[in-house]
Amino acid sequence: MPSIAEQIVQCLHDALGDVKKPVALHEPCFSGREWGYVKECLDTGWVSSVGSFVDRFESELAAYTGVRHAIATVNGTAALHVCLLLAGIEAGDEVLVPTLTFVATANAISYLGAIPHFVDSDEQSLGVDVRKLRTYLQDVAEMDPSGCRNRFSGRPIKAVIPMHAFGHPVDLDSLATLCRDYGLILIEDAAESLGSHYRGRHVGNWGSLSAVSFNGNKIVTTGGGGAILTNDPELARKAKHITTTAKLPHRWAFVHDQIAYNYRMPNLNAALGCAQLERMDSFVAAKRHLAERYRAAFLGCDGVKVFHEPVYARSNYWLNVLLLDVDQADRRDEVLETLYSLGFLCRPVWAPMHKLPMYAHCPRMNLGCAESLERRIICVPSSAGLGGA
Amino acid sequence: MPSIAEQIVQCLHDALGDVKKPVALHEPCFSGREWGYVKECLDTGWVSSVGSFVDRFESELAAYTGVRHAIATVNGTAALHVCLLLAGIEAGDEVLVPTLTFVATANAISYLGAIPHFVDSDEQSLGVDVRKLRTYLQDVAEMDPSGCRNRFSGRPIKAVIPMHAFGHPVDLDSLATLCRDYGLILIEDAAESLGSHYRGRHVGNWGSLSAVSFNGNKIVTTGGGGAILTNDPELARKAKHITTTAKLPHRWAFVHDQIAYNYRMPNLNAALGCAQLERMDSFVAAKRHLAERYRAAFLGCDGVKVFHEPVYARSNYWLNVLLLDVDQADRRDEVLETLYSLGFLCRPVWAPMHKLPMYAHCPRMNLGCAESLERRIICVPSSAGLGGA
Ligand SMILES: Cc1ncc(COP(=O)(O)O)c(C=O)c1O
Ligand SMILES: Cc1ncc(COP(=O)(O)O)c(C=O)c1O
Repeated sequence: MPSIAEQIVQCLHDALGDVKKPVALHEPCFSGREWGYVKECLDTGWVSSVGSFVDRFESELAAYTGVRHAIATVNGTAALHVCLLLAGIEAGDEVLVPTLTFVATANAISYLGAIPHFVDSDEQSLGVDVRKLRTYLQDVAEMDPSGCRNRFSGRPIKAVIPMHAFGHPVDLDSLATLCRDYGLILIEDAAESLGSHYRGRHVGNWGSLSAVSFNGNKIVTTGGGGAILTNDPELARKAKHITTTAKLPHRWAFVHDQIAYNYRMPNLNAALGCAQLERMDSFVAAKRHLAERYRAAFLGCDGVKVFHEPVYARSNYWLNVLLLDVDQADRRDEVLETLYSLGFLCRPVWAPMHKLPMYAHCPRMNLGCAESLERRIICVPSSAGLGGA
Repeated sequence: MPSIAEQIVQCLHDALGDVKKPVALHEPCFSGREWGYVKECLDTGWVSSVGSFVDRFESELAAYTGVRHAIATVNGTAALHVCLLLAGIEAGDEVLVPTLTFVATANAISYLGAIPHFVDSDEQSLGVDVRKLRTYLQDVAEMDPSGCRNRFSGRPIKAVIPMHAFGHPVDLDSLATLCRDYGLILIEDAAESLGSHYRGRHVGNWGSLSAVSFNGNKIVTTGGGGAILTNDPELARKAKHITTTAKLPHRWAFVHDQIAYNYRMPNLNAALGCAQLERMDSFVAAKRHLAERYRAAFLGCDGVKVFHEPVYARSNYWLNVLLLDVDQADRRDEVLETLYSLGFLCRPVWAPMHKLPMYAHCPRMNLGCAESLERRIICVPSSAGLGGA
């Protein structure tokens, strides 16, 4: 009887066919107009803050997501930082956030002196378990005239940041209802989920502000980059202002009216982004196709299942996830070693935030599901190229 | 008798010859290997955090400046932020900084909750007036066992950030002596002064940490970008760690050991930077040549002089500066209007920090020289291309 590692290797071979090793976890695909646009950018000399690709990238991103305004930023972390700032998060506030996320989500909260308050995950979405959060808040939250307060710490609980893990949307309608009930601001960390839909509508439309990332490992990339999404024109105006040093418009005078950031995306990176956005439909199709191949290949594989998008979702399947059965969890590292040694550059999920030294003392609910998922998730190669893009 | 505006127009024509209008204030020049390197980057797919151009850019920058370590960042503002963080600047500290600077210098101080303390400028360097600062500190500073303290505010004065305005080095030896006398940390804002030398040595070598910028308007550009320079290997290690999310090295595990930033420069931008750095010598030569042409053209022009590098310096002449005589200061806007209307895209200096609403209440010395310079500086077109690069 082959080991679980051997079985997984066999299934990966079945799913990926005759692929060149090593197989990256996620590689970008530049077979569209990337060259053309980047060259245009160099030829005109407008590589930096002046130039038309940023405007174009922003309007095409807004059109693609159906969110009214998109503000391009230097990366997804900067986008999250500004989302929280504009949501009014202040030092000493608590912000609910899944423990199972990339560290940037928690860091952005810290940049404002606010405190991440960790929430458990749901095995159906890999994101915030909304039902469990509601039960938890019944114990922990207390409403006073200024809003929701943590009855144990005494601090305001101001917002919740769902993160659509590996592209799979959390249950946004339930979460939006919860936010209304508790007066919480909803900010979506959609860094991984460009191209993902919840009940037919693109993610990023539920948060008062949302953040996406165009890092090199994302479904489309600008080298480094991100964006703030919002349907609120006033927040959009503020986001643009605060990400561009709060300079007042003038032909030559340099006057700035608030403490602000240099978080704008350079035109060079936006040029790459414009070409990449044109490929979104084919990338999503390829990634969904790849997910289907994984599903089929692993059908008969005992001890592990391929994670499937939630019922309400159409996911971008940014990274395909294998979920080891609970009784196989202690084999995770052995599986990773084997896959690595054979040139499948797989990875586990992030160390949960509450296990990192700087966040170990933050408030949290019971995190049983997240801790179980941590031991069982293996992300497998998921480039759009592997799905035929 | 022609007006001062008319005289200046005539001198600009003399200096620039038959130039195509509008003449930008500063344009990048991509006639080297920019496209080759950027294309290589796209072809390999390594546009983001993986890829060899960042390492190469860092080591070539270190070699060029003679500073032992260079850490590439997403921009100069991020570099300044990290310099201050690693220097140990904390909330409630005061940091001495010229009022005549780009807003990023003061903003970086604010990001840490520290307070800019504004210093006057010197008409010889356009930067910190070291002698005046010394006299001021005799009144304001009080030394106690933990270091220098502002006797009026009671707050620690921790550091000083000289900014080499328009590429002209401040008097670094005197400033370094002052820093020793008062136990102040020296951090150079060398954003504008790549290619500038003080007494034969490149700027950035005096600060315990220094920041440069590769914004689109700088002598060389990466679209957006910056770097931290330091001769201290331990600070260099920390700078790399904190600008790359403090991730611990591991083949697949995502563990981070402190609150940190996504401030790394993408490989795509570093590729551009590598090609640009190869041109430094020719850019500096061209810009110095252009400065010489301006000097010659304005020799007979009453009421205005061309700013000349300080005696101890060899400047990159990032932007050439006209200095109106004191009795012509009220003509500045009229001159700017005229130049603009004729297609010379000139500009004044920044609004001094103490006049911006968010910094109006910060501590400061008498800022008479900076206020005078503010009324009298006009920056004129200074692209390396105009000097023959
Ligand atoms: C969930 C999540 N949030 C935030 C980020 C931060 O984005 P970036 O790397 O562009 O700063 C990322 C991606 O790296 C992410 O996966
Ligand atoms: C003096 C000074 N400091 C800091 C910066 C900030 O650099 P960046 O624009 O790359 O963030 C600049 C340039 O814009 C500058 O001129």
